[in-house]
Formats: sequence, C-alpha cells, structure tokens
Amino acid sequence: MKKHTIVVHGGAGTILKSEMNEAKEKAYNEGLTAAIDHGYAVLDKGGTAVDAVVSAIQQLEDNPLFNAGKGAVFNAQGGHEMDASIMEGKSREAGAIAAIPNLRNPIVLAKDVMNHSDHVLLIGDGAKEFGELRKAVFENDDYFYDAYRFDQWNKIKDTDSFQLDHTKKEKKYLGTVGAVALDMEGNIAAGTSTGGMTNKKFGRVGDSAIIGSGTYADNRTCAISCTGTGEYFMRGVTAYDVSCLMMYKGLSLQEATAAAIQDHLTQIGGDGGLIAVDVHGNVSMEFNCEGMYRAYRNPKESVVKIYRN
Amino acid sequence: MKKHTIVVHGGAGTILKSEMNEAKEKAYNEGLTAAIDHGYAVLDKGGTAVDAVVSAIQQLEDNPLFNAGKGAVFNAQGGHEMDASIMEGKSREAGAIAAIPNLRNPIVLAKDVMNHSDHVLLIGDGAKEFGELRKAVFENDDYFYDAYRFDQWNKIKDTDSFQLDHTKKEKKYLGTVGAVALDMEGNIAAGTSTGGMTNKKFGRVGDSAIIGSGTYADNRTCAISCTGTGEYFMRGVTAYDVSCLMMYKGLSLQEATAAAIQDHLTQIGGDGGLIAVDVHGNVSMEFNCEGMYRAYRNPKESVVKIYRN
Repeated sequence: MKKHTIVVHGGAGTILKSEMNEAKEKAYNEGLTAAIDHGYAVLDKGGTAVDAVVSAIQQLEDNPLFNAGKGAVFNAQGGHEMDASIMEGKSREAGAIAAIPNLRNPIVLAKDVMNHSDHVLLIGDGAKEFGELRKAVFENDDYFYDAYRFDQWNKIKDTDSFQLDHTKKEKKYLGTVGAVALDMEGNIAAGTSTGGMTNKKFGRVGDSAIIGSGTYADNRTCAISCTGTGEYFMRGVTAYDVSCLMMYKGLSLQEATAAAIQDHLTQIGGDGGLIAVDVHGNVSMEFNCEGMYRAYRNPKESVVKIYRN
Repeated sequence: MKKHTIVVHGGAGTILKSEMNEAKEKAYNEGLTAAIDHGYAVLDKGGTAVDAVVSAIQQLEDNPLFNAGKGAVFNAQGGHEMDASIMEGKSREAGAIAAIPNLRNPIVLAKDVMNHSDHVLLIGDGAKEFGELRKAVFENDDYFYDAYRFDQWNKIKDTDSFQLDHTKKEKKYLGTVGAVALDMEGNIAAGTSTGGMTNKKFGRVGDSAIIGSGTYADNRTCAISCTGTGEYFMRGVTAYDVSCLMMYKGLSLQEATAAAIQDHLTQIGGDGGLIAVDVHGNVSMEFNCEGMYRAYRNPKESVVKIYRN
C-alpha cells in the first residue's frame, strides 16, 4: 500500500506568536486539522488525489479565518472575487477560474473546468455563466460579510493601497489556501484558492489561478501549491520551477522546493511559501517568511504548524 | 557590437502552399517583413529589446491578416476580446492583460502593466479601466470588422464550436502574433498578442496572456513567444519549459526548443510552435504543424518563411 498523504496550507506571511492569542491559535489549528482530516478520509477510502484536494480546500474555503471562499477579502468595489486552480499529476490536465464573484467553493468549479470543458482558464462573467451551467453554488454578499474584513477594507478603500491581507504592512499575511495529495493509486494532485488582495482593482489576477505559477502537478516529479506575493510567483513560474528542478536537474523534493523558495523566489524579492508532495509520500512545506499555516497527515502522523519553529 | 536580432511569428497551423494564392502569400510576406523591419529599426538605433518587440507586434496587430488587434476574431457575443503579455529578460519583469475588448494595440497596454502597475496580470473591465487611465487607444467595432472573420463567426455562432481560427478543422490556423528581440545592450525580451478563438465563450483565456506558458524571457537563457492550441501550452508551461531545459539541463537554444515542442508539447497532444532568441543572437523557430508565419532579421540577413521547407 502506498503512503497516502494530504498536505494543506492556509497562507503565509508575518505570522508572529507574539501577536497571536490562545483562542485564535486554537481556531487556526482546528481549521487546518479539519482540512487534513477531510482530505485524508477521502484518500483512506481509496478516493483520488483530486477529490482529496477538493475536499480539504472546501474546508478552508468554508472557514472565515482563511482568505478564500467565505473568508474572501473585499475588493475595491466592496465585493468578493475569487481565483482558483487545480491540476492532476497523471494526465497533467488542469482547470482554473479567475475573478469570479460570490462563488461558495471556487475549487469545485476549477475542477469542473478541468473535467467538463475544453479549456484551462475561464474568467469573470464567462466563468460565472459556466458555473451556472454546472450548477455551482453562489452565495449573496451577506455570506461573505465579516466585520474584520469589512473594517480592513473600509480603512483603505478610497486609497490606492492594495493589501494582500492585513492593514499594516509589517503584519502582512498573504492569504491563499491550498492542498496537495498522494492517493493509494500513486497519483498526485494540487489545488489553490484565494479571495485575492484587499481593495484590489483593475481586475488583478494573481498566481492562484495560474497553472505553473501557483499550482502544478506531474506524477514524474511532484504536486505543488504556492502562497505569497503572487506577482513574484508569476514572474518566477515557481510551481513549475520546482518540477523542472527535479526533472531536469535531478534534485530531491526537499532540495527543489528549497531552491525555488529560498534562492529563486527570494532573489527576485518575493515572499511566501509552498507545500509539495511526491509519489513516494515525501512532503515539503517551505517558506521564506515568519510563518505559514500548514498541516499534513499520512498513515503515520498528523502534523499542524503555524510558526517557523 | 552585439548581433541585434528581431524574430516574429504570425501564428501556426495547417498552412499549406496548395491552399495559398500568390496575392495572399505576398500579403503575408509583406506583413511579416514590415514587422521585422520596424522591430529591427528600433534595435539598430540602440533601442531596447522591449521597444523592438512592441514595435514589431504593433505592425502585426494593425494588419487584418493576423488574429490580433485589428484582425481579432469574433467571440460568441460578436465582439472582440484580446489577450497579450510581455516580459523583459534582465529584470524578469512582466505585464499581461486578458479579455479586454476593442483595444487597438494590446501589447502596448501589457507593457504599461509591466512598467506602470504593481501587477503582472489585469483582466476584463478592470484592465479596460487601467487602459483608460494610461490613455490606451480603443477602437469601435467597425475598426475590427472584417467580412471574412464575420462570415467565419456567423457560420458557427449559434453552435458550441470554438475555433482557433479557420472554420474547417483540417485547415486550422492557430492565430496569435509574437516577437522576441536581442538589443545592442545584450538584453532580450518577448511578447505575444492574440484575438483568441472564434466564437469563444465563458471568458476563455489562453496561453498568450500567461507568463511562463505563452511568453517568457530571462537573459540567462532565452526569450520565447508561443502560438498554438493554448490549453496545451498552459498545461505544459511551454515557454518556461524551454528556459528550464537550458538552465537546468544545459541544452542549447536549438535543443531546448526542439525538446519543448517536438517532445513535450507533442506528447500531451498540443499543436503549434514558438520563436526564441538568446543573448548570443541564436534564433529558433520551432513548430510541429504544417506551417508557421515567421521571420527574423539581424545585421547579416533578413528571412521570411511560411511553410515547413
């Protein structure tokens, strides 16, 4: 039997223990645990890596603590627009959506794009129309309303400031959720979902919707989901960079993820991290900032972490 | 003095000499020649690779023969939506736009995203708003009207068919334009622009807007612009694949472009090609279909080609 494994992240950034309280820490730990437990349950029953990724990400999207789905931040118009992507490592098929409003579970629609369209990326009103055909669940604005997020937006809405999440730059948290999984058949998959940047304008799309940048999966190398300052992950093509470092340079998963984040991403000025799994069940959770909400579960252990140490 | 070089493409696909006539062939040759001559003139005066790429692509966007700018195909609503991207090899900065309507020169706005925003990718109405701030030139529908394109769209508009360009599958032409350049300073750049697929729906975005898939540039490896069945270039992350094959596997430009197109793209079922240049002035124009509109110019020669041989 293969060592089936689920790994999740809930974003990375300036996450300091000194600024956390016990109740908040407990809530984050519970949210991450729910995500790995749901994903692991799918795998343990012989489900696919794709279904485990979707199940784990749905848990994070339904949790207001994380910037995706229900917890999506406010854009410049006071609305909520989401990006998500998914990729399967055996066929290397992929699906993604960007700038789609008020969707409950963006990752489910990304999977539908992969499985039920001839396309990889659908955006905006067109993606919404496709979602309606696929009977995707849309929620009204109340569902996404959160006093903290609203206050965060209200403080900067008439400025030119974009925020990846928190208001103070020194407290920045780069909000995205993601999951990667290895199933019992030996296939891997990766998915990513985000509510984007607070007060984002001009239809900005980040790496979470981009195959190769925020998400990538190939059974021959690994499955990756990234989180951080999206523009740098796009310029660095970070997810595919990890895969190429393994495929063309012969690096291990650990060496490849360290090189992609600590060397390549850092050199161009990017902040953030990634989670990755390979077909042997090796796990990497690499980041170059203070913390990353992250967790994994396999038949031997269940691990949840927030800070660097 | 460096060997300054401009390379352009005007799309790839089932382009057969038996289906061409002399007047049409002459028009294509003239369009490609105008593009390399404009790009080369910029380089020859000491201009940057980015400006040469923009100048060459503007020529192709203003020419109704090519599926970009003025020649953009009709989408499912009978309108015109464009995608474009650009990247600079020294800083590895990049800009892109997707699903923006009625823009005269999408490549110019992609450059503005790179130089005048904190973002890499802007889409739809938001990208249009950014374009208005940047005083981008928008044209009314008449500018884009073309009897041939309209007829092409009219035949399939009420069907579920998407067309990359021609109506008959066996005559398919994958319409995109692109340019790569090496300037006298030894810097390289790449750009791509397209009007997308005839009758496209659901806000489909292809590889032409995606850094890493349709466009990539890194002075340490090469500058690349792709054209073809976009979804396969997105899943294969084709442009960055070429760069990684050079960087991590030590292949030459010619070996890397051949592996990316003839092996990797072909293995997953993709059709199309790419143009590439490195800092030594080596040029590659690689494709796996019958033809690709392509041309290059350097201090020694000026070459224009359409068919395989």
